[in-house]
Amino acid sequence: MILANEKKKIMVLGGDGFCGWPTSLHLSNLGHDVFIVDNLSRRNIDNELEAESLTPIQPMGTRLQAWKEVSGKDIRFYNFNVARDYDHLLKVIVEEQPDTIVHFAEQRSAPYSMKSPNHKRYTVDNNLNATHNVLAAIVQSGLDIHLVHLGTMGVYGYGTAGMSIPEGYLQIEVPTDTGERISKKILYPADPGSVYHMTKTQDQLFFLFYNKNDAVRITDLHQGIVWGTNTKETMADERLINRFDYDGDYGTVLNRFLMQAAVHYPLTVHGTGGQTRAFIHIQDTVRCLQLAIENPPEAGDKVQIFNQMTETHRVRDLAKLVSDMTGAEVAYLPNPRKEADENELHVKNDLFLSKGLKPTYLSEGLLMEVTQIAERYANRADLSKIPATSNWRSKPEA
Amino acid sequence: MILANEKKKIMVLGGDGFCGWPTSLHLSNLGHDVFIVDNLSRRNIDNELEAESLTPIQPMGTRLQAWKEVSGKDIRFYNFNVARDYDHLLKVIVEEQPDTIVHFAEQRSAPYSMKSPNHKRYTVDNNLNATHNVLAAIVQSGLDIHLVHLGTMGVYGYGTAGMSIPEGYLQIEVPTDTGERISKKILYPADPGSVYHMTKTQDQLFFLFYNKNDAVRITDLHQGIVWGTNTKETMADERLINRFDYDGDYGTVLNRFLMQAAVHYPLTVHGTGGQTRAFIHIQDTVRCLQLAIENPPEAGDKVQIFNQMTETHRVRDLAKLVSDMTGAEVAYLPNPRKEADENELHVKNDLFLSKGLKPTYLSEGLLMEVTQIAERYANRADLSKIPATSNWRSKPEA
Repeated sequence: MILANEKKKIMVLGGDGFCGWPTSLHLSNLGHDVFIVDNLSRRNIDNELEAESLTPIQPMGTRLQAWKEVSGKDIRFYNFNVARDYDHLLKVIVEEQPDTIVHFAEQRSAPYSMKSPNHKRYTVDNNLNATHNVLAAIVQSGLDIHLVHLGTMGVYGYGTAGMSIPEGYLQIEVPTDTGERISKKILYPADPGSVYHMTKTQDQLFFLFYNKNDAVRITDLHQGIVWGTNTKETMADERLINRFDYDGDYGTVLNRFLMQAAVHYPLTVHGTGGQTRAFIHIQDTVRCLQLAIENPPEAGDKVQIFNQMTETHRVRDLAKLVSDMTGAEVAYLPNPRKEADENELHVKNDLFLSKGLKPTYLSEGLLMEVTQIAERYANRADLSKIPATSNWRSKPEA
Repeated sequence: MILANEKKKIMVLGGDGFCGWPTSLHLSNLGHDVFIVDNLSRRNIDNELEAESLTPIQPMGTRLQAWKEVSGKDIRFYNFNVARDYDHLLKVIVEEQPDTIVHFAEQRSAPYSMKSPNHKRYTVDNNLNATHNVLAAIVQSGLDIHLVHLGTMGVYGYGTAGMSIPEGYLQIEVPTDTGERISKKILYPADPGSVYHMTKTQDQLFFLFYNKNDAVRITDLHQGIVWGTNTKETMADERLINRFDYDGDYGTVLNRFLMQAAVHYPLTVHGTGGQTRAFIHIQDTVRCLQLAIENPPEAGDKVQIFNQMTETHRVRDLAKLVSDMTGAEVAYLPNPRKEADENELHVKNDLFLSKGLKPTYLSEGLLMEVTQIAERYANRADLSKIPATSNWRSKPEA
């Protein structure tokens, strides 16, 4: 719990989603005044894909009623489109006067962003206009609002052999015309691997400009792949349960493995499984959001960038871990993405650790996910939704 | 003139604009098969701003009829919005099968992009969706089209003391975890000075991704500030005359000085005039476009970046040049932009020079502009439109 003078009013854009919902509950539980903006686009995409969460997520009205019963706290809800309804967005900001805006209101699946030209176009149009509308509205409101944005480790690309990825900025040296060297600190050069990741690299340029021109205080969280389902708050009542996606577009690699094991489906590894990725448990995601909100940049500071991950693993090692725990088979499939078969990944995450994050590691939490989520709700699975069907190549290779 | 086997079919997006129109005529005159797409947005913005070109530009129908009479050549015209009408764009690409698409279809004024929140939002929405639609449509068409995009020197920012700006890519050194150094070639780190410039830095990330993922062949032209009005082709008949903007939003610095001198209005220098900028004459712009089209990257090449400028000057030196030539006074006004008062600027432009560009320098062309354009059409000027009214600061400073 927080002290009365630490209480903030927090606007959560995308507060119905996989990260947004548990973050809203966590912040509300701490004693902050939370309100959510969401146009339910993620649920509508479930309709489009004819897929749904493995866990039985409840409508927003039921969720908020359950939270009120469990915690005694109110979370208010506004249903509108941040990327389209600028006037509504501005009006709510001016009326509510939030201290902090947490921005999750972006399409967040790389495979979905590559499904078709219209999926590419939706991702670009939605994500870029959403981020820009938030920044323009903060400036127009005249309020000193701290914007906390959920970015991705994927902005860095995965070609970083021999060098730890710094927290956002890279110190470089370049020769001058007279042959001397000058040292500069730059945004880590972007190397996006999908249209989705591309929009997050473009978001960084929105932040760079609005921070420089209008002194907007911004924290950008470069998050790894989230695993796990529930947090302390979403476990308090089954009506509060969080999403668990296992389909070929929205299911992230580890959660897919857990669910595949639970339904005795082979664990699907794309390519050699030598891809190294960064991971974080959903419980740590919400704690990191809390730490970012509690530690805003000062007026005049440049954009604050944190790497929000706790461990790295190769995909095939994750498959082996889940296989050893459950007896599931591992199946190697062709990789639909254009990416290196194998890569090293070293990441600095000192900032969150220095602020007191105590990570939940795979070694502790994985078995609980298998039994409490994947096995418990296995009867809800539609196995036909498991294969990844999006292809990065315009003409699929043989 | 070109040989029959060098003839290309060229689609010019934004072919009604200040650079697009003379480029279309230049390419048509060379013998290429040119067609234009434009939604006349620039003329509509004239209506909004209650401003118009100093020169009497004609409607597109009159322009194309005059060109037919003068040259015997047809240029076809499609009126639609590249950022909005994706299906139309795709249909035209598939039906016409262009070899080259030249992309000028972006809002190109920095002051206009900073006028209000809605002007910022229009610039972001229009420019980013236009560029992305073109790329998505090229990939969807399955055609091997060379995309030539008009970018800006402004993507680099203006803080480059001691170092010549390379053509797009910067060779850097960074330390590894073991203290060794690795050398990498990166996109020159972006430092945009307005929402308009920001969209051009975001365009670079579209190009990076679509070139990497789909092997789209792309040339990005980082252009300096254009001066001058006419080219050989637009001078062939007064009905072909090009735009000359002198208003506070669209008038670029040198053309504004020329017109101010012609109407005996003081030359307005913002700040100290110590800003150093890169310049190019409109005749060289169209020649550079020709050279870029004639020298496409090979399949598999990365994005080709040319610096499209021929000389650099400080703004106060330009004012003095025009003042010495015409007797006009110079007036120093507060700078509405957030930028350094003084900066050095050294730029490499070896690629175009190596391909045979013979620049038109200020020293040769300036007097002709004063007499043939600024003085000739001075009676059409609306002096109330000269002041710059856009302000980069949300709360204008005293």
